[in-house]
Amino acid sequence: MTAPYTLILLRHGQSEWNKLNLFTGWVDVRLSDQGKAEAQRGGELIKESGLLPDVLHTSVLTRAIQTANIALDAADRAWIPVKRTWRLNERHYGALQGKDKAQTLEEFGQEQFMLWRRSFDVPPPVLADDSEWSQVGDPRYADLDGDLPRTESLKLVIDRFLPYWESDIKPDLASGKTVLVTAHGNSLRGLVKHLDGISDADIAELNIPTGIPLVYRLNEDFTPAGPGEYLDPEAAAAGAAAVAAQGKK
Amino acid sequence: MTAPYTLILLRHGQSEWNKLNLFTGWVDVRLSDQGKAEAQRGGELIKESGLLPDVLHTSVLTRAIQTANIALDAADRAWIPVKRTWRLNERHYGALQGKDKAQTLEEFGQEQFMLWRRSFDVPPPVLADDSEWSQVGDPRYADLDGDLPRTESLKLVIDRFLPYWESDIKPDLASGKTVLVTAHGNSLRGLVKHLDGISDADIAELNIPTGIPLVYRLNEDFTPAGPGEYLDPEAAAAGAAAVAAQGKK
Repeated sequence: MTAPYTLILLRHGQSEWNKLNLFTGWVDVRLSDQGKAEAQRGGELIKESGLLPDVLHTSVLTRAIQTANIALDAADRAWIPVKRTWRLNERHYGALQGKDKAQTLEEFGQEQFMLWRRSFDVPPPVLADDSEWSQVGDPRYADLDGDLPRTESLKLVIDRFLPYWESDIKPDLASGKTVLVTAHGNSLRGLVKHLDGISDADIAELNIPTGIPLVYRLNEDFTPAGPGEYLDPEAAAAGAAAVAAQGKK
Repeated sequence: MTAPYTLILLRHGQSEWNKLNLFTGWVDVRLSDQGKAEAQRGGELIKESGLLPDVLHTSVLTRAIQTANIALDAADRAWIPVKRTWRLNERHYGALQGKDKAQTLEEFGQEQFMLWRRSFDVPPPVLADDSEWSQVGDPRYADLDGDLPRTESLKLVIDRFLPYWESDIKPDLASGKTVLVTAHGNSLRGLVKHLDGISDADIAELNIPTGIPLVYRLNEDFTPAGPGEYLDPEAAAAGAAAVAAQGKK
């Protein structure tokens, strides 16, 4: 049997801080009303597609959890088991967390800005532990102890995500479950990079739109049987262009 | 240290079928707008109380899951781990599922009606597998195989709930976690009966209001250190009276 496994990726919809054009990272902001509507639409697309998620994996950030809750409810699958992990969190944006994107672009210039946003292995400056946007002391990360990130590059995101892919997501896929992952721009870029074998250089060009389920059919060795397919390709193309334009005023 | 454990019980708010005054049981109806508002209020009460749920246990019925999602979001705890189990489901109401409560009362008389609603060990007639309200074939119960209930008394609810109390909830309490259970009128009555040592006869008089968190402090042997306390006692008393009056036109 070819392509026995099904993986659905869903990036959370617009958050309050997306709306304000701020770098968010691990700051735990909520979905905006538009974001909730995107999640609803994402769930309806899943339902219309006939796909039946059997298990959910989410980050521990509220905007991804809200997205999953709304989408699964819309897809009549609110009851499936769920696992949450910090390993699916958005990239930690370090000292950029809480900063205005357009203002940062202006302050540091296009080159530095794009290096922080799209380079593979250059993390922004670290976030101070006494910053109001620090996650030090947040009980959901109590188990991380000294490993709590203060900044991350995309490479570091992949480094902390892949162990979870191996330990938790692959076994669910291998048992025949249709797996839904609701997460973030950069944790999903990291996963797509891994699945599609995208180079460290080319990943800079990949933008994942919000709220539109991206479906991979995987072979038994977990390689994609074909390109990932958005359930609403037209909206996905427009959404990816909008993401690419972020921070450009 | 006395009473080291904290258990919070939350009955889901009004569902679409509560509103229509129909017996619901395992039929997977959604919360009404009023039910969503109750869940929101329940979450705000938890937040105001300073209680910090560390783990959530819910049934696999959408109305309890919606309640948990809304309440935890309101309490800024959407990210806690969650376990779902059919063992926390509402009582299976057998052939009464889908029937109007007032009409059932009229058709069968007060005595038979109260026997089905409040007797400890008399289940309603079984629900036919070809009924539109049957759960046969529902994938969330695939693991139950031949054990899928077709009707239940409160006694049968307790019989299927207690193993989960022992295997999953007690260990969470014993590890020091504040446990939130979002469930249903009868699964929560069963739990309260067990905790408070209420007799088979007296449990008939116990009504649990919707949407108001009920907090137990438990000793190391899991006995209550005192009576369970509602976070809004006044609203709880009014709510319990409203439940008691259900089905009476």
